[in-house]
Amino acid sequence: MLPFMKTPLSLTLINGAPNQIITPADRGLAYGDGLFETIKLHNGSPCLLEFHQERLYQGLARLKFSDQAIKAVQESLNVSVSQLVSFANEHALPAAVMKWVVTRGVGLRGYNPEGADQPSVIASVAPYHPMKERNINGVSVFVCDTPLARNPFLSGLKHLNRLEQVLARAEWQSTEYAEGLMLDTEGHVVEGTMSNLFWVKGGEVFTPDLTYCGIEGTLRRFIIQTLNAQGQSVHIVSEGLNAIKDADEVFVCNSLIGIWPVTQMMGCHWDVGPTTLEIQKRLDEAEV
Amino acid sequence: MLPFMKTPLSLTLINGAPNQIITPADRGLAYGDGLFETIKLHNGSPCLLEFHQERLYQGLARLKFSDQAIKAVQESLNVSVSQLVSFANEHALPAAVMKWVVTRGVGLRGYNPEGADQPSVIASVAPYHPMKERNINGVSVFVCDTPLARNPFLSGLKHLNRLEQVLARAEWQSTEYAEGLMLDTEGHVVEGTMSNLFWVKGGEVFTPDLTYCGIEGTLRRFIIQTLNAQGQSVHIVSEGLNAIKDADEVFVCNSLIGIWPVTQMMGCHWDVGPTTLEIQKRLDEAEV
Repeated sequence: MLPFMKTPLSLTLINGAPNQIITPADRGLAYGDGLFETIKLHNGSPCLLEFHQERLYQGLARLKFSDQAIKAVQESLNVSVSQLVSFANEHALPAAVMKWVVTRGVGLRGYNPEGADQPSVIASVAPYHPMKERNINGVSVFVCDTPLARNPFLSGLKHLNRLEQVLARAEWQSTEYAEGLMLDTEGHVVEGTMSNLFWVKGGEVFTPDLTYCGIEGTLRRFIIQTLNAQGQSVHIVSEGLNAIKDADEVFVCNSLIGIWPVTQMMGCHWDVGPTTLEIQKRLDEAEV
Repeated sequence: MLPFMKTPLSLTLINGAPNQIITPADRGLAYGDGLFETIKLHNGSPCLLEFHQERLYQGLARLKFSDQAIKAVQESLNVSVSQLVSFANEHALPAAVMKWVVTRGVGLRGYNPEGADQPSVIASVAPYHPMKERNINGVSVFVCDTPLARNPFLSGLKHLNRLEQVLARAEWQSTEYAEGLMLDTEGHVVEGTMSNLFWVKGGEVFTPDLTYCGIEGTLRRFIIQTLNAQGQSVHIVSEGLNAIKDADEVFVCNSLIGIWPVTQMMGCHWDVGPTTLEIQKRLDEAEV
């Protein structure tokens, strides 16, 4: 049985076709040499599609994929996305998630990417079950011991080297916690294991600087742009946990979950605050 | 065509059998959630086999693979290694390389490894073409801009998150350079892109500390043990490039290439020195 074949409610395309395979020699598997995106489908259409595309193609360029390889990825994804969206609509999926994984494909033995110019493009769609009560009532967050290493050559990218997140997420299994915050090796709060972080203090909105580590989330970008457009600046800062403990409101976000207000962390308690509610309202209006 | 199937001189086994596949949902591909080993076959038998096994199994425990999963990996590898060694011998490969890739297998969506307890074990063998002239005459090394991030939770492990090495190796294509040195984000020399580093100064032997980053190479371990056994200590240090420039002898090593004396780096020149030759001789005698 091919476990990634079409199952009743999900579909995976590799380089545009179903029933294709990934070889063990693929550099995505060997080295995590690639990027991924996770896109929400809402009412049958992908949310923030251009943001996901931009992040992906800019990221591939940062990983030194050739222009020709990036063009091939674009063409492959354009075809696959249409098919996956049609599939979701044909199966009347009320909410769905699309995932893209792009690797450098197969090359010669060793780290040198020279000659590996036929990327692998894996695009899939599957049902998604939103947890609306978390958006409404908020969540408790764990604080992880596993730190994020600082490397400006990789920061911001949604790349396939995610062992730090795996180890951090393995630190708790209690359903009490919906997410875990991660600090970098110098003690700055950076993000959640799968989300970006914002907080509000004295009416001002803050989010961690991602120059040295962290993923530049598409919803983070949308929130910053939306606030800027209404004349509200977002402060990009490097702060320790105390800044969060001292905040008036805290929330985590990603393109799939939306905004989860944080109501508990390390003995601190917060209400779901007015700024958080206002931003949630803007996202609902924009249907992202 | 299945590109990873048996070709005339190579063989890949997945979970002990040929013609198996890796699914796109494998956490090795999704997150680099796993480890690998590269083992030299010399005169038909694997070199430093116990060192590779120890590093792998200890590494899996650090990645929180369950005892049961580690046991399954051991059993699978024991069977595969016998088959691969037989294959190499049947095909009279004069020199060969065996590679093991162990991933956490398929789990639920997301970083949480809970429930992913059926590891994927990919073991392969292929011909290897040693470059003896590099062992004898030495090599020039490049100094890479791409830094190694510091994270003690991952240091030492030969894990599948290797984008730093890929980006570093992409910095040069000239055949003038056989290897590139990498510094950490604080300017300490750590290792080559695919090798460990040693140097000699005033008769004393030095190698970088790997507490914060770098791979604990099996040949590095063997060299340290061998020198210790003959009463020579190896100094494990955190130093900048100047310590290398100021050295009397420099070499890089890994289990596949053996020892490559470094004869040129950034305008510095070295002869192949007596300590390097002595260590090479010990390795030859031990057939590693």
